[in-house]
Order: sequence, then C-alpha cells, then structure tokens
Amino acid sequence: MLTINDTKVVHNFNSGPSILPKEVFQQASEAILNFNNTGLSILEIGHRTTLFQEVLDEAVSTLKELMHLDNDLEVLFLHGGASTQFFQVPMNLLNENETAAYLDCGTWGTKAIKEAKLFGNVNMVASSKDKNYSYIPKNYIIPSDSKYFHYTTNNTIEGTQMHSIPETNVPLIADMSSDILSHEMDFNRFSLIYAGAQKNIGAAGVNIVIVKKDILGKVNRKLPTMMDYRVHIENGSMVNTPPVFAVYVCMLTLRWLKQRGGVAEIEKINDIKAKLLYDTIDSLPVFKATVAKEDRSKMNVVFVMENPELEKQFLAECKENGIVAIKGHRSVGGFRASLYNALPLESVQVLTELMKEFANSHG
Amino acid sequence: MLTINDTKVVHNFNSGPSILPKEVFQQASEAILNFNNTGLSILEIGHRTTLFQEVLDEAVSTLKELMHLDNDLEVLFLHGGASTQFFQVPMNLLNENETAAYLDCGTWGTKAIKEAKLFGNVNMVASSKDKNYSYIPKNYIIPSDSKYFHYTTNNTIEGTQMHSIPETNVPLIADMSSDILSHEMDFNRFSLIYAGAQKNIGAAGVNIVIVKKDILGKVNRKLPTMMDYRVHIENGSMVNTPPVFAVYVCMLTLRWLKQRGGVAEIEKINDIKAKLLYDTIDSLPVFKATVAKEDRSKMNVVFVMENPELEKQFLAECKENGIVAIKGHRSVGGFRASLYNALPLESVQVLTELMKEFANSHG
Repeated sequence: MLTINDTKVVHNFNSGPSILPKEVFQQASEAILNFNNTGLSILEIGHRTTLFQEVLDEAVSTLKELMHLDNDLEVLFLHGGASTQFFQVPMNLLNENETAAYLDCGTWGTKAIKEAKLFGNVNMVASSKDKNYSYIPKNYIIPSDSKYFHYTTNNTIEGTQMHSIPETNVPLIADMSSDILSHEMDFNRFSLIYAGAQKNIGAAGVNIVIVKKDILGKVNRKLPTMMDYRVHIENGSMVNTPPVFAVYVCMLTLRWLKQRGGVAEIEKINDIKAKLLYDTIDSLPVFKATVAKEDRSKMNVVFVMENPELEKQFLAECKENGIVAIKGHRSVGGFRASLYNALPLESVQVLTELMKEFANSHG
Repeated sequence: MLTINDTKVVHNFNSGPSILPKEVFQQASEAILNFNNTGLSILEIGHRTTLFQEVLDEAVSTLKELMHLDNDLEVLFLHGGASTQFFQVPMNLLNENETAAYLDCGTWGTKAIKEAKLFGNVNMVASSKDKNYSYIPKNYIIPSDSKYFHYTTNNTIEGTQMHSIPETNVPLIADMSSDILSHEMDFNRFSLIYAGAQKNIGAAGVNIVIVKKDILGKVNRKLPTMMDYRVHIENGSMVNTPPVFAVYVCMLTLRWLKQRGGVAEIEKINDIKAKLLYDTIDSLPVFKATVAKEDRSKMNVVFVMENPELEKQFLAECKENGIVAIKGHRSVGGFRASLYNALPLESVQVLTELMKEFANSHG
C-alpha cells in the first residue's frame, strides 16, 4: 500500500486549498479505490444511497457538535464557494429598499459589498482601506435598523482577524472561510455563517452555510431553486447531486478534529503555532509583521523584509528546506504563512529555525 | 500498493454519479497521496499554481479536441451542477420581455422551464408529459423570433434520447449531462452546452459550460459576478477557488477517452452495449422496454416486468451477481441500466446473461 511516508517531507503553508491531516489523505485515497469495503469507489456511488447519506449525516452532526450549535441553526453543504455566498446572502435576505450594514476590512469583504449592492442598499459602517487593510476598524456604529450586519472574521490575504464578535442587535452574518473551527467562539450568536471548505473543513469544491430559519422567507423577489436556502434545508443539501467526494473529505476532516479533542484543543495548538511565528518575527530585525499587533491573524501570518533582494534569497532557502507556498499575496508582497488546523507545529518550528539562521547570516 | 484488483467485482449501472475508468480511480487515488511526485496531495495544492493550471488547461484542451470544437466556443468548468444552469442560462440570456422556446421531454427539461420563467417568457413548443415522457415529441415548430431553443439531449430518468439535432435558425442550447461524449455530433451547432460532470466527464462537483461569446452581454439585468459567464471566460474558470479535485478527475477521464480513440471509438462500444441490452429485453417476454423504440436512450436503458413480485426477485439475483444500482427511478419503476462510457461491455454481458437465465426459469 502506498503511504505518504515514502514521499519527501513538505511543509505546506498554502493559504487554501491547504494542508489537510495526513490521515484524511490516506483514508480519502483508499476510498477512491474501495469505499467502506463495497468494492465501489467513493466517486461512483449514488448520492441517494444510504452509503452517501451516512457520510453527509456524519458531516452535519459532527460540525454541529464541534461548533456547539443550537437546534435552530441549519447546516448546509452547498456548491459554489464563499464567492457565491457574496450574492446568495443578499439575494435571500435583502429587499431592494432595505439597507444592510457591511464592514470593509479586506479583499473578501469588499467583494461581498459589491455583490450586495446588486440587491439592496449597503451601509459600509467602516473600512480599513486607508492603510491597505492592515488593521481591523473599531468603534463604528451598526444602525439598529440594518437588515443585517456582515463581516469577514479573518482576512486571508491581509492577515488580520477579528478577535471578538461585534455587539449589535441586528442579525449577524459572517464569512468565516479562513478561520472557522480554529478557535472557540459563540457561533450561536450568528444568524448566518458561511465558509468555503478548503481551509479548516476539507477540500475545495464545497461550501458550508449555517443559517437560522427565522431570517428566511422575508424577501419579495422570486428566488431560483438552487439559490433558495429554504429549498436546500427542506432537501437536506440534496436538491441536486452534491459534490460527493468533497463532502466526504469534509466528514473525514471533521471526524479527525473531533478525535483530536475538538475546537478547544486545536485552538491551544493554533495559539502555540501563531505565538512561535510572531515572536520569531518580532525578535528578528530582518523580518517585519505588516499588521496592527492587536489584529494579527492566527491563521495567516503576513510578514515582509526591508530588502526585496533578501526576500528572494529567503524564498529560495525555504524551497530547499521543503517549505512551500509561503510567498505573500501580490497585493501585500513579502511572505504569508498559513497555519491552518492541519499544519503540524513541527512545520512552524522548521520555518522559524530557518528564519533565525537566515537572520544570523544576514542580520 | 492497493489496487482495485483485490476487491470484489462489481458491475455498477448507476445513473450518476457513475462508474469511471478504473485507471482514473487508480491515478486519482495516488494523486491524493502524492501528486505528480511533488510530495503534496492534489487536495492541498494551490489553484493558482502552475501545477493546477496545467491540469485545467489539459482538461479544457482535451475536451475541445474530443468535441472538435471551433475556436468561438469557450469551455468553462464551473461550480454548481446542471441544476444551477437551469437558472444561469436564462439569467444571462433572456430579458424579461423576451421569449425562449423550450422542449419539455422529461424531468430535467421541466425543471429548466420552471427556472426560465423567473427571468422571461417561456414558449413550451412541445411536451411528452401525456405519456410519462416515454417518447420524444416530433414535428413541433420553434418560432424564429425565439431568443433561443433549449432541450435535453438525453433523459436520464425516463430513458429517452434525441437522435438528431433539431433544425432551427435560433441559438441552440442543450443540457447534455447524461450523454455528452457518448456519441459523435456536431457540437459546433450549439450556442451553449452544459453538463454535470458526474456521468461521462468525471466526478460529481463540477459542471461543464461551453458557450459562444457572441450570445453574451445582451441582457439588461445586472449579473452577480459568479453568475456571469463573461467573467468566468475572462478569468479562465478561476474567478474563485475551483473544485480542484473534481477538475482533476475530469482531466484524467478525458485523457482516458482520448487514449481510447475519442468519441467515435467509444460510440462503437456504446452502440454494441445498448444493442445487446435492448435486443435481450426485446427477445425475452418477461421484460419490457418502456420507451418508444426510435427514442430509446443508449445511455440509460429503462425496462420493467409485468409482475412486480418477479422484479424484486430479479433485483435480488442482480445483487448476488455483483450488479448494483439497477433499480429504476421511482417515477418509472422497474429497472434502469446506465451504460456510460466507462461501463465495460463485460458488465452488460453479465447482466444480459442473468436476464436470459432468469427468463428461462420464470418464463
């Protein structure tokens, strides 16, 4: 049997699609040849079989358990990615004459605002665009007559993260694509949560939507069947053929997280990983974090060097040491190390040791 | 290395997700552990890497080659399945005051009509609903001022198939989900073709759209970014994170088909498989095909038995012989054997031999 052990060691800091637990890779690989000893591949089983229904049911129930969700929150596995939610949310919730409040704290929030404007009015309550989204705006006011308040919990590209849930009386909606399940929070305070799976939940090709039924059914427009959250709830995420394999990988990843002790336990390791990397950056004059200290993301650590020539050299040394996908997003430059749940502490140790050696020889 | 050979032989007649070539299962399984000898899983590689760009490029170019597509047809790999296309097509093409012509020849066509009515007027030019969609309507008129004409080339549930392309001067649009790449046809006559991948193209979780640019950009409504075909064309199917693994499985399956000699060669085998099964049904009084002879599908063969008690017994014998997923859709009853490209002739031989034995002992 081919195992991942015979391959070279790679430390994958990719921002998404990103590293998943090696047990998940192993199980997913086997299920493609023989799923649950049926003699069938997971890729050829019918989605209306009990075989798949059990996979979907376990994915839903494990997610509910890991997030401690109340019964009034429905969990959906949908096609399309978070970018589809940018318009599906206002399409389902915002009438033309109504106003929703949005926080503009990064690339993804800006895109969400653009789509919402197609359906109703947007009140952009605050923005950190003035400083290239390097901080999270504070002390803004969410008008109490807003239809809802939308924000991005973690900014994958800019490396900022909201470390508390905004206080407001209006329905809270969050894009949690890049930090869901990475730390404990009161998910029950939200009316709608969405997240592309390809960071902490599973593989690319499926999207999670968690929604309170009571906010639905209040818009005047007619909704296409595939865009109507109520239809997906009624049909248990099976209106049409779901992305079977992507859901299966989610189930395996969620099962892995549960076996590791859940969100509270992984949060401890995530804290250690992030602290190690930020402490290393702060201790070495050659590196510099780009983000306001209190808003630093524990998932996506963005840092630069003063000297672009040194950046190229450091990237080359990373490559030599099996560290991949650490180049920063073109809008920020420098480096970005994504520390999702499945990234082992060891990978961060390899990176920080290399940073120290590099700083010593180029300090 | 785990191979599919150590597992029991299963003959999978599922209607979709459905059987794929065993070489594809093998390669996909390996790529989950170590993709192209990178030490990375296909599930963890970035979609903006050359690693994935090469996969997508090969999928697009192989599909173009297999379908002999002219240069004015753009190939997209999109999220959402054919059910999303039911509304995305009229959203992109049909103004509120305009009329599109639709043929109602089965479950999927009916659904497409329902969604189109949300965006404009639908002229249902013909329907075979009167006989439970057991035939393809003929001799209908497509008004020459229709915005487009939409039909389903193969009806997965009812087991009918259009064996020629309708003659019309209006743009042709077809849902080819369940027979694309199964037989040669002049795909260049279409302005838009769509197909869920999970039959002849690959695994569930991705959708193919092939579209002529000149029909786009003519509606008045504002389109959400993720719904606008033009945006997907401009971004080469990479507006957001694509379903990476599903696209990879498509690429492998298309590569397999090319290596087998392409559509013309697979059509010969498909013809043999369908003829063998229909001839067997016709020769055995205990079985009965449900569909008008001239409209029989070569992909989904629907048949029943007079005696429901015998049906249960035959199903049980199928199971004993490794024949799975042959139970008919609840709307038709009886049996449905789906004979997609990857189903070996041997599986049809096993089924027809069993049918003959069964007829002999219950005739």
